[in-house]
Amino acid sequence: MRTVDIIRKKRDGGELNSEEIAFIIRGCTDGSIPDYQLSAWAMAVYFQGMNARETADLTMEMARSGDQMDLGAIHGIKVDKHSTGGVGDTTTLILAPLVAAAGVPVAKMSGRGLGHTGGTIDKLESIPGYRVELSKEQFVEQVNRVGAAVISQTGNITPADKKLYSLRDVTATVNSIPLIASSVMSKKIASGADAIVLDVKTGNGAFMKSLEESIELAEAMVAIGSQVGRETVAVITGMDEPLGSSIGNALEVKEAIRVLKGEETGTPLRKVALMLGAHMLLLGGKAKDYVQAVGILEEAITSGAACNKLKEMIAAQGGKADIVDFPEQLPAADTIIPVHADGEGWIESVAAEEIGLAAMNLGAGRATKEDKIDLGVGIVLHKRSGERVVRGDTLAELHVSAGRAEAAEAAGKQVLAAFRLAERPVEPKPLVYAVVTKDGVQSGDKVWQ
Amino acid sequence: MRTVDIIRKKRDGGELNSEEIAFIIRGCTDGSIPDYQLSAWAMAVYFQGMNARETADLTMEMARSGDQMDLGAIHGIKVDKHSTGGVGDTTTLILAPLVAAAGVPVAKMSGRGLGHTGGTIDKLESIPGYRVELSKEQFVEQVNRVGAAVISQTGNITPADKKLYSLRDVTATVNSIPLIASSVMSKKIASGADAIVLDVKTGNGAFMKSLEESIELAEAMVAIGSQVGRETVAVITGMDEPLGSSIGNALEVKEAIRVLKGEETGTPLRKVALMLGAHMLLLGGKAKDYVQAVGILEEAITSGAACNKLKEMIAAQGGKADIVDFPEQLPAADTIIPVHADGEGWIESVAAEEIGLAAMNLGAGRATKEDKIDLGVGIVLHKRSGERVVRGDTLAELHVSAGRAEAAEAAGKQVLAAFRLAERPVEPKPLVYAVVTKDGVQSGDKVWQ
Repeated sequence: MRTVDIIRKKRDGGELNSEEIAFIIRGCTDGSIPDYQLSAWAMAVYFQGMNARETADLTMEMARSGDQMDLGAIHGIKVDKHSTGGVGDTTTLILAPLVAAAGVPVAKMSGRGLGHTGGTIDKLESIPGYRVELSKEQFVEQVNRVGAAVISQTGNITPADKKLYSLRDVTATVNSIPLIASSVMSKKIASGADAIVLDVKTGNGAFMKSLEESIELAEAMVAIGSQVGRETVAVITGMDEPLGSSIGNALEVKEAIRVLKGEETGTPLRKVALMLGAHMLLLGGKAKDYVQAVGILEEAITSGAACNKLKEMIAAQGGKADIVDFPEQLPAADTIIPVHADGEGWIESVAAEEIGLAAMNLGAGRATKEDKIDLGVGIVLHKRSGERVVRGDTLAELHVSAGRAEAAEAAGKQVLAAFRLAERPVEPKPLVYAVVTKDGVQSGDKVWQ
Repeated sequence: MRTVDIIRKKRDGGELNSEEIAFIIRGCTDGSIPDYQLSAWAMAVYFQGMNARETADLTMEMARSGDQMDLGAIHGIKVDKHSTGGVGDTTTLILAPLVAAAGVPVAKMSGRGLGHTGGTIDKLESIPGYRVELSKEQFVEQVNRVGAAVISQTGNITPADKKLYSLRDVTATVNSIPLIASSVMSKKIASGADAIVLDVKTGNGAFMKSLEESIELAEAMVAIGSQVGRETVAVITGMDEPLGSSIGNALEVKEAIRVLKGEETGTPLRKVALMLGAHMLLLGGKAKDYVQAVGILEEAITSGAACNKLKEMIAAQGGKADIVDFPEQLPAADTIIPVHADGEGWIESVAAEEIGLAAMNLGAGRATKEDKIDLGVGIVLHKRSGERVVRGDTLAELHVSAGRAEAAEAAGKQVLAAFRLAERPVEPKPLVYAVVTKDGVQSGDKVWQ
């Protein structure tokens, strides 16, 4: 088998068989296929696509390219959750204890992040003492005992994906549905998931800017799940404005705690978390329908079970559990600077991308891998789209470290520019656009309650 | 400027500006752009193409990437000729003395070859003593004095093209019209051509199998010529069967000598050589129309001037000039084995590709760069398409070296299989399909006489 023939076959729109896909991914992993052939192959895939069978084969080959977590020792159906990434999205911190409180084991490996804020692991590190690294044995033991553990990704998971992704990043071949879908799914499968709930973001602050592309990506991932025996459900949610009101590491932990305590009602973050959690319960076999699943989760919040589960999880991982009762112990910024409206009208949008960049500029996120995160800083939104404001209203707060006056001034301008005002009332964009399951696509109005 | 942005722009169908093309080719030449980005870029070009302006820019950047021959010291308009390559094509050996005899200087750098036979340089090396390497000064002096010199390509000509081509070869990106066109034209321009005549082969034994593709390639090269001020004419000729009757290095030299002596009349090789030569005379300003140009060339053959010019050229390059009068002094095979028809009918085709492979298997060509060529061996066709044969007729002769009985047997089968017989008379395929000039495409019937 010759790599150039496989590239040519894909270039000409052919379907690659399992052996050909295995040849490419094994050659990628062991370095026997040079980078210039891998990148040409990726560009051919960019143009010609892959069908469901090819994408599933690609996923499984990448999943098998390195270590594979065997979570067989954990009782129950392990349901993983993945978000394609957005601004102010702290659903993992809410869902781990919430879903565990409802009886579905959550054995989650998360990452750090590049971008507006850190990843889930960075956020958890704002909790004093919290250890993000556990041995596999400790991890399994904790999930069986407590019901949930969130740790940093360990081991050599999907090295083929890592290598291919870094090549795609510099050869303009990132934006290919089968390549994105197989990249996400291979990591979840190698991490030991039995079933997967996906939050595919769409809009200004998302990787996928259009709804069509987002649905296509969701369908591709759900199809992979069907092909490889990991039932997968994808929820398409809006990322035109930040999901939560807080953008920043400790700030997002505080907001997650408020949701778990039941202090936030009707907010987009709570709505999306409940929706994702309900699907996790359904896939985990702990509810017979969606309405029942949501009810179980609401009850776990009201009863305090979810909040207690968070404390248990933090304590099990060595962290200071009473930050749940006293969140003021979490890292905080030195100064809070309000951003005031400079006009009046109805808020048409709060551009997620710009708010994210402003938070990163304050130090909440990394622009490069080497950057250090400032855990206490960030942005808190006071207004969201659809609301009416008059000149002087506080739109948001900047949480700023001492000595960052210049960055704060720039961030203030970015935040102000992110708020777009209209002269007439505007209908906020939908929060949930669609749910994609193996049975097809349901539009948002049908699934949203 | 970032390479990934240029790849993305081309991927999305954008037109690259001159600076972007220069950035890619300079980065290719100096190694600052890694191969994996070049190959992804080439694949994007494969899918999205390039317009005439981009292709011309690419050509000139590649032409400037290394040494550029300055042939300014040679008097007159230097007209170069290039063939996209076929089987039994020895027009360069005919045209160099023929066109020089008509007063157009021929300063030609040629290559060795991979494939069915060697390149022009290999063929010339079958002439005892012939030196294929001259200094630039000797080269220029010889062309001014004798009118023609054919030497091996010297210096570091178009290194960007060499590097890009070797990458394209292993990444399935060879078959792109703008990349092929710029590759050919950049070499001709760097070699100092003022004007260019192209022989674009089409058919079974050609790189371009379809007429449409061949015309497209011809148009792309003629357009480059117009854009960069090197008038270019392309003739599309058939390569469904070998052009000459001889396939092999010394065998082809002998056939070229016969054409120059006027011993071959009405053969495809002579027809195509006269046509290409006539266009060289027209571009070189030595004839006012096509009919006059052909007349001048025919007269050069009849008068013996062309044959004398060949002797002068050989002598000037240190070769044994009396091989022209006594070609039996050229290398010859040990044995001649006839291939007999095993059926009867009309010859529908003599598949060029198969005949070429048979010649290579006898040792006439190289399968890899390291192979040594056997200058005396090859194949001589006795029959061509359209002719009627009966069982036992000699279709071809194999010229074989001692100790190659096994190879000869295999070649005999290949040659026999290349002759396809029909039960009814068949019209041979056209020899010339079209002529492409800056004024457009003329069909073959109009230009052929």
